[in-house]
Amino acid sequence: MSTAWTSRYALRTKGITSSAIRELLKVTQKPGMISFGGGLPAPDVFPVQRFEEACHKVLTHQAASALQYGETEGYRPLRELIANNIARYGIKAKVENVLITSGSQQALDLIGKLFINAGDRVLVEAPTYLGALQAFDVYGAEYVSVAIDENGLRTDLLEEPLRSGPKFMYVLPNFQNPAGITLSEGRRHELVMLSEKYGIPIVEDDPYGQLRYEGEHLPSLVVLDRKNMARDNGYSIGNVIYLSTFSKTLAPGLRLGWIVAPPEIIGKLTQLKQGADLHTSTFTQSVAYEVARDGFLDKHVKLIRRIYRERRDVMLEALQDFFPPEVTWTHPQGGLFLWVTLPDMPDMKAIFNAALEQNVAFVPGDSFYANEGAGKNGRQGSRHMRLNFSNAAPEQIREGIRRLSAAVKSQQTATTLKLPLEV
Amino acid sequence: MSTAWTSRYALRTKGITSSAIRELLKVTQKPGMISFGGGLPAPDVFPVQRFEEACHKVLTHQAASALQYGETEGYRPLRELIANNIARYGIKAKVENVLITSGSQQALDLIGKLFINAGDRVLVEAPTYLGALQAFDVYGAEYVSVAIDENGLRTDLLEEPLRSGPKFMYVLPNFQNPAGITLSEGRRHELVMLSEKYGIPIVEDDPYGQLRYEGEHLPSLVVLDRKNMARDNGYSIGNVIYLSTFSKTLAPGLRLGWIVAPPEIIGKLTQLKQGADLHTSTFTQSVAYEVARDGFLDKHVKLIRRIYRERRDVMLEALQDFFPPEVTWTHPQGGLFLWVTLPDMPDMKAIFNAALEQNVAFVPGDSFYANEGAGKNGRQGSRHMRLNFSNAAPEQIREGIRRLSAAVKSQQTATTLKLPLEV
Repeated sequence: MSTAWTSRYALRTKGITSSAIRELLKVTQKPGMISFGGGLPAPDVFPVQRFEEACHKVLTHQAASALQYGETEGYRPLRELIANNIARYGIKAKVENVLITSGSQQALDLIGKLFINAGDRVLVEAPTYLGALQAFDVYGAEYVSVAIDENGLRTDLLEEPLRSGPKFMYVLPNFQNPAGITLSEGRRHELVMLSEKYGIPIVEDDPYGQLRYEGEHLPSLVVLDRKNMARDNGYSIGNVIYLSTFSKTLAPGLRLGWIVAPPEIIGKLTQLKQGADLHTSTFTQSVAYEVARDGFLDKHVKLIRRIYRERRDVMLEALQDFFPPEVTWTHPQGGLFLWVTLPDMPDMKAIFNAALEQNVAFVPGDSFYANEGAGKNGRQGSRHMRLNFSNAAPEQIREGIRRLSAAVKSQQTATTLKLPLEV
Repeated sequence: MSTAWTSRYALRTKGITSSAIRELLKVTQKPGMISFGGGLPAPDVFPVQRFEEACHKVLTHQAASALQYGETEGYRPLRELIANNIARYGIKAKVENVLITSGSQQALDLIGKLFINAGDRVLVEAPTYLGALQAFDVYGAEYVSVAIDENGLRTDLLEEPLRSGPKFMYVLPNFQNPAGITLSEGRRHELVMLSEKYGIPIVEDDPYGQLRYEGEHLPSLVVLDRKNMARDNGYSIGNVIYLSTFSKTLAPGLRLGWIVAPPEIIGKLTQLKQGADLHTSTFTQSVAYEVARDGFLDKHVKLIRRIYRERRDVMLEALQDFFPPEVTWTHPQGGLFLWVTLPDMPDMKAIFNAALEQNVAFVPGDSFYANEGAGKNGRQGSRHMRLNFSNAAPEQIREGIRRLSAAVKSQQTATTLKLPLEV
């Protein structure tokens, strides 16, 4: 084995491990496997023909710039398109407010790099997006976890954690990953108000916002933040940094996300991005722009909504048909995931293995809690399963849920351990 | 202005600034400007037709995977192609030794993340690649700089710095950026020997190795490292981490680089890459594979060599024709850059501005020294100019050098300050 290197790891890497989901992705490529594991879009919705036209156009008319080094901030027409698109949701961003990132994951990494000193606390939802924990962990983040319920983050529990002085809050208001829960409008107002009251800013991660299958669009935190400001000057501009991505609306293989923030923050993040990867691929940016432009993205998002809504409904119906009544699950109004809660303290590892034997995969809930393994949180997660409903075809979804219920039942009868329900 | 965020920057960001080169890139897009500034490939060598065929093939036959999330380690056929390609240079890597990165810049960032604690020293060449300094700075690196001469890093000066215990050495053996210098074969052996003797590993950055215009290929440090091991078991496997990229052989807009390292290090870097951007674009990886495969890359590299060699020769001749005899420059055997040394202590800022007025750009040398501004190093750099010869067409190169010589002369006559030559 190598010697000189392996004794030289930096302290920050002590706790890093591979994401359960990334490792799972490899297992689930086994033929015959029905995977509810990854957060994968349906490949059948990729607009392949449009991509081909876009590649042809880019390579015919602008190959010299699309294959060359580009500006760190991103391809300007794409930044403009993003600013225009989000304006319809009330987010008043200019080009200078938009930084293109190599997927939303890079946005999280750059935010961690810019703001987190070792030992700083980040306030997160419990459960929360695993990739954010991975991005922040490496900068030595510690966490204050606040529970969610069917209306999202429990703002009634926020004041004490906010008084403890976290560096920022990390929140997914729409169809949250992993739980599929949406933050209610009342709580959005309350959250922005509390952010201002305690001077604790917010990272609003919104990868799924456009994928709403029922109900009305709710205002983004970044919009409420600015509205409050405009109304009575009681709030500062820019307490909310907003993140989104083309991964769920065009294709994740492009690795294209973006950050919306005040120009000063964008400037700092741009400097960090220079050191991280110089810039995101000019080729994928140019192609994505040609795909998305002239209203195509809107039309395409409508198609995705129709397809994913059907899959969600198939999964909800199958859960109803196959699962015993003591098992519960969330009813997501959009997004890619739902969250199943088992009644007892099950042996989730055994259920997971039984499921893999039945050729069906999911992600055990404990991956989505900060400070996992630390007693309480670890136990919280172990009652839950995250199920993705966007990737598999409807008939596979029904069959997968049938198999999964069999796996759960096989282990439930084997379980003797019964613990009181947890909050 | 934003309030809650701007008071919350992490300590590591205190010293970060934008790279002079990245900012320069914006200036040099002015029409009429002849730029020797960036390290930009010639756009006329991009194999556009082949790219178009590759996009068509990828989107016709494998869109579902090329647009989807992929493995963090990279697209396996591309990793195999890389392993096979470098085998011809004696680097015996398997797929498991190769991690695809979002450009070589990300490789540097991940290496900094994995190995550098705040205050750790990194041994670098003086001058060295600016982007490496940017990547390492953010992790709190400090530097030990060792001079180069016409045979590369001065290994005769290495023992004392190595005894001071740097975390690793960062070296560009081939056609170094910025100086265009190549490390001699004798010194390569010596460097690997010293690395083993003091237990200080090496990051070998080799973006230009294939672009040799004269002379014989010299063995990579990673090859010497292994050869030594095989010969007498006196050296460990894997003291050298090797980096390269498709940026100079295919197109930088793809953002595709790679790391070759022992599997344990690749595993750690992969975990960090998950948190940094999940994976590099599956689409650009698939397209690059289709472009490069079946021997195309080799043929294409031959074309690039022919074109860049001509441009180098035009620049060398123009320097001879236009510059006064007291100005000297390096004679690069390959790569993209040469390094001009002015005899006195010039006012480089005035020369730079005079050059921009003449519509010609270069990068002032002080950008390429670690700990710049700290007296000695800052002064070292201020006698030098980095000139890129790959991007401009031959007739532009001659005209650009003519303009540049006029800018230099205009400032030299204005200069009264004369300092003794520095080492």
